[in-house]
Amino acid sequence: MSRFLMSIRYLGTNYHGWQVQNNARTIQPSVQDALEKVIGFRPNVSGCSRTDSGVHAYEYCFHFDYDGSISPVNLVNAINANLDEDIVATACNEVDEDFHARYSVKSKEYVYVFYDSKFKDPFLNGRAVHARKLDEKLMDKAAKEFVGKFDFSAFCSSGSSVEDKTRTVFSARVIRENGTVRFFVRADGFLYNMVRIMAGTLLFVCMGKIRVEDIPKIIHSKDRSRAGITAPACGLYLNKVFY
Amino acid sequence: MSRFLMSIRYLGTNYHGWQVQNNARTIQPSVQDALEKVIGFRPNVSGCSRTDSGVHAYEYCFHFDYDGSISPVNLVNAINANLDEDIVATACNEVDEDFHARYSVKSKEYVYVFYDSKFKDPFLNGRAVHARKLDEKLMDKAAKEFVGKFDFSAFCSSGSSVEDKTRTVFSARVIRENGTVRFFVRADGFLYNMVRIMAGTLLFVCMGKIRVEDIPKIIHSKDRSRAGITAPACGLYLNKVFY
Repeated sequence: MSRFLMSIRYLGTNYHGWQVQNNARTIQPSVQDALEKVIGFRPNVSGCSRTDSGVHAYEYCFHFDYDGSISPVNLVNAINANLDEDIVATACNEVDEDFHARYSVKSKEYVYVFYDSKFKDPFLNGRAVHARKLDEKLMDKAAKEFVGKFDFSAFCSSGSSVEDKTRTVFSARVIRENGTVRFFVRADGFLYNMVRIMAGTLLFVCMGKIRVEDIPKIIHSKDRSRAGITAPACGLYLNKVFY
Repeated sequence: MSRFLMSIRYLGTNYHGWQVQNNARTIQPSVQDALEKVIGFRPNVSGCSRTDSGVHAYEYCFHFDYDGSISPVNLVNAINANLDEDIVATACNEVDEDFHARYSVKSKEYVYVFYDSKFKDPFLNGRAVHARKLDEKLMDKAAKEFVGKFDFSAFCSSGSSVEDKTRTVFSARVIRENGTVRFFVRADGFLYNMVRIMAGTLLFVCMGKIRVEDIPKIIHSKDRSRAGITAPACGLYLNKVFY
């Protein structure tokens, strides 16, 4: 058996995340359905992470095992002919047999998208979160406080069963681009809702409810109640997966 | 009675155009529904143009008569509280009583959006038309041939009942922007499917099926069969209305 790593891009609006669920449309079985039609059997597919309902991906990766004769390039084209229009495969490469889409991840980058036009924009509905008056320079300054190796318990929703909540954030930045304000954050791993709580905290910084200099204290407190709200899922995109 | 001109912006995907239709969701009655809730009666609304099913608008204008006490600014906010998320009101101004949203138009600008990434993009699905290898410089050169006062019969779908098919195109340009290729065209009026046939003709220019220097001849021929295909509705946006 050979192992293949495939990259997909998807609009998550109509999906309840990656993971198979009863009675809910998710990405994983959609990908399995399409692959099954192409390779003739239903493969196990292992994704790089769970994603919440409504979250999008510019790049999401999964692996599967297959020993047929279809080349990776042809697999991409063939699966695209069988996928719904809100999911597209963009790459496929053979990897070592001990490679794992989730456990081999070195880091991932998410981007959270806001915008602050006077009125809500129908074209950004479900794809970005509307806010009043965003100060991207202040948000960028605040985001920089997330960089480092910390116990991010204050940025983890309750219900997480993970014990070690220490993660290393390699980079964080906020830029204004094409009418949106984008918060990029790259880390070796993310806790449950971590990016959405960081995004909500940046919103609170804009609203004057949290000061930039409070952020290290909030991290240190490990107290979820001191951080900002959990920003809506629809503003969140998995941007890149690094192996 | 005072007359008001209102501007809206809408994602047309889920609408069969502006005009009221039996058994089809359209923009006009959606706007009337929302206005009725705000002003207490169902106003007649006159739009600046018909639009096809699936066509979008960055700016669409309509007028209505109203003599109540709600200010234009408050009308905008109140109607937005009652509109679906794929339509938003962005402005409202009192106009002269003989002003007409359609007949007072001096010119309108449309934009047709293409993109040519390697794979179809789920985020542009229904919002732009995918093509292989676009040459925006060549398209721009071709678009410039549309500028002038001509009988545009060759760029009008059959079924149009308009007799005088002479229109003046004031400007036309093609630019690459944010991963898309955009064809902007401004004229004193447009024939049925005129922009979509122009867009299809620009595609044919990219594909080598029509040469730039053929375009004046195609216009002169008044022969629809010599122009390109009618490009899909989902790439078309009413961009601006000038009074």
